[in-house]
Amino acid sequence: MRNFVIAIVVAVFMAGCVQPVVKEEAKPAAPPIVKPAAPPAAVAEPASYALSKEEFEKMRQIYFDRCAGCHGVLRKGATGGALTPDKTRVKGAALLRAFIYTGTGGGMPGWGKQGVLSDAETDLMVKYIQNDPPIPPQWSLPDMKKSWKVLIPPEKRPTAPQHKRDWQNFFVVTLRDAGQIAIIDGDTKEVVSTVDSGYAVHIVRMSMSGRYVYTIGRDGKATMIDLWMEKPDTVAEIRTGLDARSIDVSKFAGFHDKYAIVGCYWPPQMVILDGATLEPIKIVSTLSYTYDTEEFHPEPRVASIVASHFKPEWVVNIKETGQIWLVDYSDPSNPEIKMIEAERFLHDGGWDASKRYFLVGANMRNKVSIVDTKERKLVANVETGIKPHPGRGANWTDSVYGPVWATGHLGEGLMAAIGTDPDKYPQNAWKVVRRATMLGGGNLFIKTHPNSNWIWVDHTLNSDDKIKRSIGVYDKNNIGDKLYKSWEVADYGRAVHFEYNKAGDEMWVSVWGRMDVPGKVGEIVVYDDKTLAEKARIKNLVTPTGKFNVYNTVNDIY
Amino acid sequence: MRNFVIAIVVAVFMAGCVQPVVKEEAKPAAPPIVKPAAPPAAVAEPASYALSKEEFEKMRQIYFDRCAGCHGVLRKGATGGALTPDKTRVKGAALLRAFIYTGTGGGMPGWGKQGVLSDAETDLMVKYIQNDPPIPPQWSLPDMKKSWKVLIPPEKRPTAPQHKRDWQNFFVVTLRDAGQIAIIDGDTKEVVSTVDSGYAVHIVRMSMSGRYVYTIGRDGKATMIDLWMEKPDTVAEIRTGLDARSIDVSKFAGFHDKYAIVGCYWPPQMVILDGATLEPIKIVSTLSYTYDTEEFHPEPRVASIVASHFKPEWVVNIKETGQIWLVDYSDPSNPEIKMIEAERFLHDGGWDASKRYFLVGANMRNKVSIVDTKERKLVANVETGIKPHPGRGANWTDSVYGPVWATGHLGEGLMAAIGTDPDKYPQNAWKVVRRATMLGGGNLFIKTHPNSNWIWVDHTLNSDDKIKRSIGVYDKNNIGDKLYKSWEVADYGRAVHFEYNKAGDEMWVSVWGRMDVPGKVGEIVVYDDKTLAEKARIKNLVTPTGKFNVYNTVNDIY
Repeated sequence: MRNFVIAIVVAVFMAGCVQPVVKEEAKPAAPPIVKPAAPPAAVAEPASYALSKEEFEKMRQIYFDRCAGCHGVLRKGATGGALTPDKTRVKGAALLRAFIYTGTGGGMPGWGKQGVLSDAETDLMVKYIQNDPPIPPQWSLPDMKKSWKVLIPPEKRPTAPQHKRDWQNFFVVTLRDAGQIAIIDGDTKEVVSTVDSGYAVHIVRMSMSGRYVYTIGRDGKATMIDLWMEKPDTVAEIRTGLDARSIDVSKFAGFHDKYAIVGCYWPPQMVILDGATLEPIKIVSTLSYTYDTEEFHPEPRVASIVASHFKPEWVVNIKETGQIWLVDYSDPSNPEIKMIEAERFLHDGGWDASKRYFLVGANMRNKVSIVDTKERKLVANVETGIKPHPGRGANWTDSVYGPVWATGHLGEGLMAAIGTDPDKYPQNAWKVVRRATMLGGGNLFIKTHPNSNWIWVDHTLNSDDKIKRSIGVYDKNNIGDKLYKSWEVADYGRAVHFEYNKAGDEMWVSVWGRMDVPGKVGEIVVYDDKTLAEKARIKNLVTPTGKFNVYNTVNDIY
Repeated sequence: MRNFVIAIVVAVFMAGCVQPVVKEEAKPAAPPIVKPAAPPAAVAEPASYALSKEEFEKMRQIYFDRCAGCHGVLRKGATGGALTPDKTRVKGAALLRAFIYTGTGGGMPGWGKQGVLSDAETDLMVKYIQNDPPIPPQWSLPDMKKSWKVLIPPEKRPTAPQHKRDWQNFFVVTLRDAGQIAIIDGDTKEVVSTVDSGYAVHIVRMSMSGRYVYTIGRDGKATMIDLWMEKPDTVAEIRTGLDARSIDVSKFAGFHDKYAIVGCYWPPQMVILDGATLEPIKIVSTLSYTYDTEEFHPEPRVASIVASHFKPEWVVNIKETGQIWLVDYSDPSNPEIKMIEAERFLHDGGWDASKRYFLVGANMRNKVSIVDTKERKLVANVETGIKPHPGRGANWTDSVYGPVWATGHLGEGLMAAIGTDPDKYPQNAWKVVRRATMLGGGNLFIKTHPNSNWIWVDHTLNSDDKIKRSIGVYDKNNIGDKLYKSWEVADYGRAVHFEYNKAGDEMWVSVWGRMDVPGKVGEIVVYDDKTLAEKARIKNLVTPTGKFNVYNTVNDIY
């Protein structure tokens, strides 16, 4: 009976606290739909969660190794729920124990069931998370080196593709809650390989050769997958931090694939790696001062990184202090860094069509920051709408305004396009020239292609069940002020993220389901980009989210 | 009787623990000469030093405001003794109280006597320093701005010198324990003005115009003195941190005196200021990773800074992580920084004769790091001897080896000269080509001048009473392996630091006495550089140490 009650309470708790978000900053405000059956527990007495110094240290190590990636280094929650003492001390040890031991269907592993934690360790962890969170540990080179594995050294890798597939048209798909990557053949729609990765891979990038996939998990684990293997698999891996979101490769001529870089949330650092083996070379701190008030910030996180085609440098976006650092990698042990003041709460962004200008959302300030990577300076901070979320944005030549780059928004149903050609269209440059509505707020991604007539948008984090699984398109040549067409992609889950195939004539959209609902875990829907008709469904993929086509990612086609 | 006993114990304690050092890293190993009269006190009970949260916070503020500059941000000691709990908990409250209330003659102010701390606050401070030291606070722009004062704005300053003195031949002298600067007329040897400064000013720099003196106190206070005033005085001041050692001005053509920079010990930051008003513009963190093991260091301190004549940048030396950062100031809100890996424990250094190469001691590693500021890279780490301490070093054209730069050492009686001309003397470049002995270890400064026949050295931190007040010279054209001549400068104190006058025909040497010994507080001895004969004594200066001639400092003549 007790177990039954616990299971009910667990289910109820789970329903209330698991928040399916692609990026933890964008939590939907949906309240729990079921009231708890049991009355709230009393606040636990300190004696009940007291730990010896050794026990605390042991649990601290386990916490940062296993838990921080989802629950955050300060336990404020991220893809997993918040575990701060104000929450954990009222849940009761039995409930906490059930979570830790058994897990949930929402992505929380059952550490006891899986044999990772013993009974005794589970009890200690229950106590640990009721204590105040300690300062998170550092993660410097010695820790990275211990985690670094070259599973297949470069000299042992194939010198030519070992299969006959068009690997340049492979799609690399994040299977979010499974902690895996699926490699899908863009021609045949077959899953070629499913590869373990870090937890909840945030993005991937391709080597300039296109043959390697670089992945970064939220838990700081970076991996490298070789698409030339008969069955693509991991050739190298390393943990570069305890919490991370960004990775990229060196793209400038003469430096192709020589280096990779990971940007961390915690510790506040960026790590330069050997592009062939992921061997760590150099660590640079992101600790810095808010650009506007010059106040020290103890936790500036690297939000996103892109690689310049223009210079041997990366564009590294530092969220909390609002700085964009151009990091020259021509001599990575002795980096040169141009620190540009932009706007706070930088998030994701991408290149304009010329690849000279970088446009990045500063979401909490409703702005997009624009940096000229040739002149190496800020061009503008442009106000667009409530919480822009561009992904890498979408570029097209507008029939009225010339070259533009566009973003959607989390906070309102708005597509905003910014003029990006200061030479031929100076009157439009760096201004919002076009606005159009979509079904509602919660947009995460916008996408187009030079060959396409359409601009695609999703509504992934919208609270409405139908809207969250609907996508829409604008007619590029006749955008107007609203969507041309919209439809529900599936009858479950959330529709999220767009990627074209190599030819630019197919659009792939993810349906992000739930690991624990059979038949509704997720799928990818493939559309004919000319006709918008459905072409194929790749079913039973576990919570697919981001999809990166090799060719388009190598060449930054968006 | 009680007060008498306390006074005795205070005197004894003072004799044992006050360590006259110019730089805290170079503590002499001399043991106390008088045994304590009283038996060691028992270790204090925690209850006796317990503080409420509010009391602790109040004392923490006072500690960092008043005490950290000498006793260190973590109370490990610097120019003042260590105040860590292992020391303070055995001294007894009465003794601690006496120190704090009454002070000592060795530089410790009597905070109670001076009315800075009340009786009650003194008792709280006694408790505070028996508690574990807390994490030191940050000191960001809002704190700096509160401390920033423009006493005489630029438009109200004289447009021409208000006196007829040859201000280009002024000497700016640190009166270390008095917290003051003396401005001395190099022609007449008169003290023109005595100006309050930060505590224990570490160095000064001149504006390129030569009219302004920029000072930095160990307590982080930077001040600007105008030598054109009838009586030179402070025109602006600001506290840029809680602990600092370095300051410089922008020297590149087109940027003369536009900006100043302070390098801090704590917080780990550098601060760029307006060169005319000291208004704070930009703060850059020095938090970084050890160059060799890539491990995060929580307290990398800026040891020294010089200004390039070659590019609009400063050369900033970051001690603990062994990095030399070239900080471009042409756009100080958006600085560009080249981070060069050098060697750990960087300290002080200077230019070669061409001003292209920067040579800096990495003292704990017995090396000198050499950076090419044209090619922007490390040239070499050269092993020289035990704990090199160059000051800015000394340059001459050696009769055998061509252009060389030389340093003395703290750890042994050795002058080592390094070849600095890779074009004409490649076989000598970046190697120690010449060694000569001096009377013993403890050397702090070495000096010469293009017009001079001599290379001067001191033995300031030598433990022998006679040697510590002796200086010596090498005959530049016949150096050999030992001093040409040496002599005691005074019959008390320590001889320290050399500076030429503008003409390069006088050598000024400081005698660093003690504030509390009348008649032996200190003086400057002026020598005829041709004959080595004594020319003058400027007496009764309170603990003079560094002396900076305006002309020579502007033009980096050494």
